[in-house]
Amino acid sequence: MEKIPVGILGATGTVGQKFVLLLADHPMFRVVELVASERSAGKTYREACAWKQATAMPEPIAELTVKALGDALTGRILFSGLDSSVAGEAETRYADGGHIVISNSSNHRMDADVPLTIPEINADHFALTKRQKRDGAILTNSNCSTMFLAMALGPLHREFTVEAAHVTTMQAISGAGYPGVPSIDILGNVVPYIASEEEKLETEAAKILGRLTESGIESAPFSISAQCNRVPVFDGHLETVSVKFASRVTPEDVARCLAEFRGMPQEHKLPSAPERPIVVTEEKDRPQPARDIMIQNGMATIVGRIRRCPVFDVKMVILGHNTIRGAAGAAVLNAEAYHALGYMS
Amino acid sequence: MEKIPVGILGATGTVGQKFVLLLADHPMFRVVELVASERSAGKTYREACAWKQATAMPEPIAELTVKALGDALTGRILFSGLDSSVAGEAETRYADGGHIVISNSSNHRMDADVPLTIPEINADHFALTKRQKRDGAILTNSNCSTMFLAMALGPLHREFTVEAAHVTTMQAISGAGYPGVPSIDILGNVVPYIASEEEKLETEAAKILGRLTESGIESAPFSISAQCNRVPVFDGHLETVSVKFASRVTPEDVARCLAEFRGMPQEHKLPSAPERPIVVTEEKDRPQPARDIMIQNGMATIVGRIRRCPVFDVKMVILGHNTIRGAAGAAVLNAEAYHALGYMS
Amino acid sequence: MEKIPVGILGATGTVGQKFVLLLADHPMFRVVELVASERSAGKTYREACAWKQATAMPEPIAELTVKALGDALTGRILFSGLDSSVAGEAETRYADGGHIVISNSSNHRMDADVPLTIPEINADHFALTKRQKRDGAILTNSNCSTMFLAMALGPLHREFTVEAAHVTTMQAISGAGYPGVPSIDILGNVVPYIASEEEKLETEAAKILGRLTESGIESAPFSISAQCNRVPVFDGHLETVSVKFASRVTPEDVARCLAEFRGMPQEHKLPSAPERPIVVTEEKDRPQPARDIMIQNGMATIVGRIRRCPVFDVKMVILGHNTIRGAAGAAVLNAEAYHALGYMS
Amino acid sequence: MEKIPVGILGATGTVGQKFVLLLADHPMFRVVELVASERSAGKTYREACAWKQATAMPEPIAELTVKALGDALTGRILFSGLDSSVAGEAETRYADGGHIVISNSSNHRMDADVPLTIPEINADHFALTKRQKRDGAILTNSNCSTMFLAMALGPLHREFTVEAAHVTTMQAISGAGYPGVPSIDILGNVVPYIASEEEKLETEAAKILGRLTESGIESAPFSISAQCNRVPVFDGHLETVSVKFASRVTPEDVARCLAEFRGMPQEHKLPSAPERPIVVTEEKDRPQPARDIMIQNGMATIVGRIRRCPVFDVKMVILGHNTIRGAAGAAVLNAEAYHALGYMS
Repeated sequence: MEKIPVGILGATGTVGQKFVLLLADHPMFRVVELVASERSAGKTYREACAWKQATAMPEPIAELTVKALGDALTGRILFSGLDSSVAGEAETRYADGGHIVISNSSNHRMDADVPLTIPEINADHFALTKRQKRDGAILTNSNCSTMFLAMALGPLHREFTVEAAHVTTMQAISGAGYPGVPSIDILGNVVPYIASEEEKLETEAAKILGRLTESGIESAPFSISAQCNRVPVFDGHLETVSVKFASRVTPEDVARCLAEFRGMPQEHKLPSAPERPIVVTEEKDRPQPARDIMIQNGMATIVGRIRRCPVFDVKMVILGHNTIRGAAGAAVLNAEAYHALGYMS
Repeated sequence: MEKIPVGILGATGTVGQKFVLLLADHPMFRVVELVASERSAGKTYREACAWKQATAMPEPIAELTVKALGDALTGRILFSGLDSSVAGEAETRYADGGHIVISNSSNHRMDADVPLTIPEINADHFALTKRQKRDGAILTNSNCSTMFLAMALGPLHREFTVEAAHVTTMQAISGAGYPGVPSIDILGNVVPYIASEEEKLETEAAKILGRLTESGIESAPFSISAQCNRVPVFDGHLETVSVKFASRVTPEDVARCLAEFRGMPQEHKLPSAPERPIVVTEEKDRPQPARDIMIQNGMATIVGRIRRCPVFDVKMVILGHNTIRGAAGAAVLNAEAYHALGYMS
Repeated sequence: MEKIPVGILGATGTVGQKFVLLLADHPMFRVVELVASERSAGKTYREACAWKQATAMPEPIAELTVKALGDALTGRILFSGLDSSVAGEAETRYADGGHIVISNSSNHRMDADVPLTIPEINADHFALTKRQKRDGAILTNSNCSTMFLAMALGPLHREFTVEAAHVTTMQAISGAGYPGVPSIDILGNVVPYIASEEEKLETEAAKILGRLTESGIESAPFSISAQCNRVPVFDGHLETVSVKFASRVTPEDVARCLAEFRGMPQEHKLPSAPERPIVVTEEKDRPQPARDIMIQNGMATIVGRIRRCPVFDVKMVILGHNTIRGAAGAAVLNAEAYHALGYMS
Repeated sequence: MEKIPVGILGATGTVGQKFVLLLADHPMFRVVELVASERSAGKTYREACAWKQATAMPEPIAELTVKALGDALTGRILFSGLDSSVAGEAETRYADGGHIVISNSSNHRMDADVPLTIPEINADHFALTKRQKRDGAILTNSNCSTMFLAMALGPLHREFTVEAAHVTTMQAISGAGYPGVPSIDILGNVVPYIASEEEKLETEAAKILGRLTESGIESAPFSISAQCNRVPVFDGHLETVSVKFASRVTPEDVARCLAEFRGMPQEHKLPSAPERPIVVTEEKDRPQPARDIMIQNGMATIVGRIRRCPVFDVKMVILGHNTIRGAAGAAVLNAEAYHALGYMS
């Protein structure tokens, strides 16, 4: 099979670099162009990019010449890791021009005709793209923290009906991009605030778990309260979550439901799909970011310490790799799922 | 006024070292004896102690010869920073023998006749000591995380009636003592588990905010759900809290109530009392452990980000210095208050 | 005595904030003006400054209105914590205009007629200012890493003659200012490079220990090789140093020489002078930045592990507080010494 | 080819865990037994081991029943990650009993008849084992810090003759094992002392680069001065090194010599051999532990910032993965090399 030519928007950024790593040897996609700011345009990717990954820059991609945002592109799919200050307009323009824009940016996530999808949970929402008045389309994945929350709430809501959830996040510095968080602010510290993050957690999950209707997505009727913190951790967002259900649900019910869960990416055996989307841990002190984020190549959502909550019904600890499953990997899986379901033919 | 001779039990430990710092120049108390394990007994404090404080060991105390746990003591008050593996029996023995034991250990906190006190909140509970069948008495302060939660819930519960609260803690490594948390476990990591900590948070606050009756303390009728995490922070426990009230309460009500709050230590101008027991911050990203724990010499509880909660009524971020107000400073303030209220005459 | 009115150039930066702290209650100086960039000008210091200190912003200074660089100033002395990108010209202009500019910036340090001084070591170099063709004068202190090296080499060179030294530094993040080092670059990492730092260490010490002659400073004839590293430490530069002497010198000689050393600030009992400029530690694993930098209010140079070197003569570990003795405190002490020696009358 | 049955001594420790990872799918070796303390004996490895690796415990090995030190063993080769408190006697006993003991412990390294080898540098020293009066043999690899120093000095000494070197190390916490360094001692800190480490660096390299003679190893005649520091880095030892040569050597000579270097493991294409034993970096701020230690699966020695030294001839920065190439990986490569050279037939 001929590989589909793809481009990466915002290729020199933190998410862009993960796209490069995840797409370098991808069985379905072939990176043909990298797009960054004017400042980088015309340089090779090797010259333009302050590479911050623990593995080396993939060789053939390193030699690609970086294009400027706005240049005409040839990639059928464009993966966008653009900063939200420029993503809105640029993504619209490329989608109007016929490209499939698979975006990790927040700008279009809550647009009525844009799917906000986790393929395991709501691949049916892809159908929204047919309502977009564009030659191409825009698809989005959720905010990184929302990803792991929605992944865990998804199967629980379908089986038991979630009424409310409290979530407190402890988020890694890599989530803030580069240069991101100054070390003076975070070394030996916790910052109990991340701009716009709580709002995203409180709204995006309800759209993802919502119902596709004639008039758009009808949000799931639960409420979420989020408190977001930055912690001195390199990669991996940890979340403490307490859930209230519509009926009596035990920790055992929750553990069983999550461990058994499989979705469309698993059925289709998509290249980036983790074998088990949710991994349930048994140890009393896990999951931990420094130990567990690479389970299933960083594509799993790990849930541990599932136990009774004295206030709500069940509480638990959720972990995921924020720049893989929580960002670039989510977008790549969206693209694989969108293609597998026949939307691109 | 003649200073009251006091001893420190567990003087070489993390809490013991803070006792030494806080009592070195205390206007009411004079350290006359230091007690530690057999291994340390007979050595000078300087020799026996692996001093881990950022300021130097106070000179005259450094030359005291360390006694062994069980030795006869002369201190009228004994401050106990003993490990819970030995505190229970040793504290009982010394209290039976006529000493006032002011303990930071958890062993006797929930005993029916032992006051678990924060002088600003429930100094009336000191009266319980009269029911102890001992020549001396045992008083306790709360667990470090409970301290800041109970301090914030105290005035709110009295004015508005708290029904429930969700709390997630991010706790400093100094709370685990020495050697405590291995660096391999916490550098660039979060450990979502601290032994027995959630249970303490879920039970101690209800006793502190309970009502003193003929038959003992009647616990406050709210429920608390806690999720406790260890983070790579040196000093300072940060807590995200969502509170449900019995009636409609706004963030402004909460901020006003907390900022105005004063208690018995402030009225009596006790030496270790912070001028304002609760400091309310306005900045969007505060309080932070590395920046704010030394407000009012580490004796304040700092509350910020007071805002509406989409699930409960109000959510907020609470911070305190775990080894000062959360441990040694709490015990010293208990002793000052107990004395000021005439219980020692 | 009337306090001398002083201004602070670059008042909102990391070094500027330390100037504010050190000068807030100074017995000789009174802060009358704060200067920062155009962006900050016109705001109060409280509004303009992202305060990053662990203690609160001093109250009266917080209300001063920030002036812009270039504005006419009234301070007799101007303490400069300006970035080197603007310090050169601005400092020259203010010194030409009659101000005494006490600079922490690197721009003028190696100028032939500008003293680069540590008052304990080479206060005689202040005389150079008389050769400056200015109504005012410029004085500088050394780079932060050089400070502690020169302070230790100073007495050793005078007594024994230093021939060469190898130094490797492990420098705190606060030395890079704010926002400074991105956390992604330094959390759990060491960066073996700091721009221009090795050059400063290799040249500045030789000027400081040089001889004042008719034609300027004749550099000390030893050679230094420096390797500089950034480490995830908040405050405090640690340096491993091996020294080769012209004659046989033992570790005991070095320890005795350093511990006995006193200089002009100690004789004059200058307000910011540490009682002992060099503190020699005996413990096998000290000095350590997180434990020892506040010895003598951050104004001491701490030297430990003095032992025989198998290649040179003696090796040792040196520590100092980079933003106090290594920057703002050094400048304040320079001003005190310059005044005490009568240069300002 | 039948795989050689091997055992791991000290299998539950930090180095033992790396042995498990490196040997799990080894093409020449098959793990048949795991040995640990009495406390672990009888349990499965999964039960006995506090696994601290970022990847999961290899499945078949997890089910092996742990044996006690002293039990009769069947492994032809025994890889030893034993603590030095027990390694000396235990390794002697097993080697006397016919096993090939490949040890990472320090106890026998300086024994006259025990090879201390880096196969790229001194595989000829293996011949020493024939002089051991044992049915089996003991082979050792160097201390972790020595490994990277000796690897870099090896080719330089052979081509140019090294006369002296100054080295300062910044060593990762994983080098101290588990529980190892308490977090209170190292978070935001540097500890300028590691027990016995400087002595090892100052003596082991001279043996490795020494000459095999009739009467044993004649140490290389250069002198080394080491200063060792523990830094808050997870994995990877960084070293600043200044080298004095017998004749004029330029940075370019050094870079060329190191980059071109290949040794016996490369010629024999041993399974664990890195393609290039020494990787020379060009960037001004590399190598860095958090970025570069996994180059060539953690088996490379990375050398950067090669430049002129104002005191000696050339200075540089050296990095290696302390628990892979610096410990378990070094032992595995020793075993592969020893076998490849026919010593086991």
